[in-house]
Amino acid sequence: MAYLDRVFHSLSDGTRRAVIAQLAGGPASVGELARQHRMALPSFMKHIHVLEESEIVVSRKMGRVRMCQLRPGALAAAQGWLEQERRVWETRLNQLDSFVETLAEQDNTHGHE
Amino acid sequence: MAYLDRVFHSLSDGTRRAVIAQLAGGPASVGELARQHRMALPSFMKHIHVLEESEIVVSRKMGRVRMCQLRPGALAAAQGWLEQERRVWETRLNQLDSFVETLAEQDNTHGHE
Repeated sequence: MAYLDRVFHSLSDGTRRAVIAQLAGGPASVGELARQHRMALPSFMKHIHVLEESEIVVSRKMGRVRMCQLRPGALAAAQGWLEQERRVWETRLNQLDSFVETLAEQDNTHGHE
Repeated sequence: MAYLDRVFHSLSDGTRRAVIAQLAGGPASVGELARQHRMALPSFMKHIHVLEESEIVVSRKMGRVRMCQLRPGALAAAQGWLEQERRVWETRLNQLDSFVETLAEQDNTHGHE
């Protein structure tokens, strides 16, 4: 699976988005993160693994707890892709607006003939 | 599945992202879109349906061809979510920077004692 596939797949689940939102506020242990979700720990750990595979979250064992944090630039690729497509699209819509305005002006001219 | 789940799921596939990129440049028929991908038409149509279910693409039959276009604001929700999390995170990192600087200054002071 390509990198962006994994990133967007990670983002396609409400539990994983909630984990990202929580980690945006600072690192947290798996226990602290899991506490927010009504889910068995093994199921929750699967979400953590998906987030790690997409390189959004990094975790490491510190003593007896596993600490998680967002990887720097974790969401930059996804944001970059969306921003690029939006720009292409907006440029096109602006061109279309100008075209429609030109048509409307021509129509007005004809109307007054 | 929640709306953002569907949107990010749609974005998690390279073929679907390529369709979005093509449609950002303007509407296209299913045939024109499919031509860019080495894939049987039924498989390609599944991707179009996923894009329609996530409300990123709208299609309608015009005569004998089905025309597709991006829905206005299609990517806004995904962009909005990412932007919000990035802001929370950056605010936190800036606070952390200040904290680390404070620690470093205190450390310097101790070093000169």
